[in-house]
Amino acid sequence: MKDRLTIVKVGGKIVEEPETLSALLRDFSAIAGFKLLVHGGGRSATRMAADLGIATRMVDGRRITDDAMLRVVTMVYGGLVNKGIVAGLQAEGVDALGMTGADMGIILSEKRPVKTVDYGWVGDVKRVNGEALAALVRSGVVPVIAPLTHDGNGHLLNTNADTMAGETAKGLAAYFDVHLVFCFEKPGVLRDENDDASVVPVITRRVYAELRESGVVTGGMLPKLDNAFDSLDSGVSEVIITKASSLGNLAEGTHVINGEK
Amino acid sequence: MKDRLTIVKVGGKIVEEPETLSALLRDFSAIAGFKLLVHGGGRSATRMAADLGIATRMVDGRRITDDAMLRVVTMVYGGLVNKGIVAGLQAEGVDALGMTGADMGIILSEKRPVKTVDYGWVGDVKRVNGEALAALVRSGVVPVIAPLTHDGNGHLLNTNADTMAGETAKGLAAYFDVHLVFCFEKPGVLRDENDDASVVPVITRRVYAELRESGVVTGGMLPKLDNAFDSLDSGVSEVIITKASSLGNLAEGTHVINGEK
Repeated sequence: MKDRLTIVKVGGKIVEEPETLSALLRDFSAIAGFKLLVHGGGRSATRMAADLGIATRMVDGRRITDDAMLRVVTMVYGGLVNKGIVAGLQAEGVDALGMTGADMGIILSEKRPVKTVDYGWVGDVKRVNGEALAALVRSGVVPVIAPLTHDGNGHLLNTNADTMAGETAKGLAAYFDVHLVFCFEKPGVLRDENDDASVVPVITRRVYAELRESGVVTGGMLPKLDNAFDSLDSGVSEVIITKASSLGNLAEGTHVINGEK
Repeated sequence: MKDRLTIVKVGGKIVEEPETLSALLRDFSAIAGFKLLVHGGGRSATRMAADLGIATRMVDGRRITDDAMLRVVTMVYGGLVNKGIVAGLQAEGVDALGMTGADMGIILSEKRPVKTVDYGWVGDVKRVNGEALAALVRSGVVPVIAPLTHDGNGHLLNTNADTMAGETAKGLAAYFDVHLVFCFEKPGVLRDENDDASVVPVITRRVYAELRESGVVTGGMLPKLDNAFDSLDSGVSEVIITKASSLGNLAEGTHVINGEK
């Protein structure tokens, strides 16, 4: 039986405010066994860019990353946000190591080709070095991964944190029993978006089809769930969608799994 | 016999300009065997602070680091400069891993006590985790260390890069035959500061005493050499003072060694 590895993705909102960050650090520290954190930082990047007089342009929720914006995200994701989390986790007794995809060459990507939109220095993940990451995790280190990758030719690339978490989970599925947790503002996928008690506890493909047909799941949740099933197809054991404050009790939240349930 | 480990310290000037940086990456890559890089980044931090409307205050060459300045150096040293070097080294085939002292808890420091000057979030090195660093280096990873440490209580601290290089060398001397290289604008310690061909090839304590007495070595070079002998006393094999462009041929430059020569 493979050892359990919990991979947690947290968005910028949680890691950028001192109070929510310190709660997250405590909750993440409480997770037993091997673990890994992937974080965002978009709000801080947008704020820092504004402070530097650099305008943020987004297309379909993705940041257009020209030279100046690449410098901003490299500083903010790889430095400010990442090292703040690392120092905080070290204080909680977690042997955190901040990384980007360039560090130890763990995540190689390629610059997104220009079609209708030129996203600039944005990278799509090509390959995760699961072997190197697995060895690091087994040695007791807890990787804290910023949403930056590299192209292998010396260029850093801005990469979506959700995608990085998914790809990292898939790349580690050969080595661990991987549970991938997406922290979200809501306690999970809700039957009634106004009722936090209406969490759908388990989503299989059959349940997903029903939720889609009945219109319970729509909009931004659809690609999240499509990606979740894609992860399961690549060997990830389950994908959990939950609140950051529930990291200490992962039985809560929505569990996306293969199976007939 | 212990394996050779070359630790290179490069100042901000070299890593902050694209041309000198790419030359450095090539020269550093050419160093055979185990290696580790410690870098500065002060000029970039000062420039970024200015862009953000934050004034830089220095006392005795040390940066006063208040909350706002700590954010700047965390971004610039830990993100912008560090990750640029890492991506560049990866492109050269070097398995670089960017780190601060907080990452894997490799360098613990304590906030400098306020005496006549309050330096703010500046840390003096307390302990280097040589064992963790040595294991990393032995695994083939090349640590690239930014001049930031942590206090173990969740706070990052701005730390002098020369000091970090020296302390890292001492902390690794039990595991490796450590050669500590300080890259400098000049090709070494010069007998005549206007003649680059007048490099003093070897400095022992006896030679140092002579150079001091005759007034050849003065000013900023004195603490550098004092620190070099301090490193030798802690087991470092030699300290080399040379130009970055001589990294490919370390026989050049000034070699500070124990011995009767």
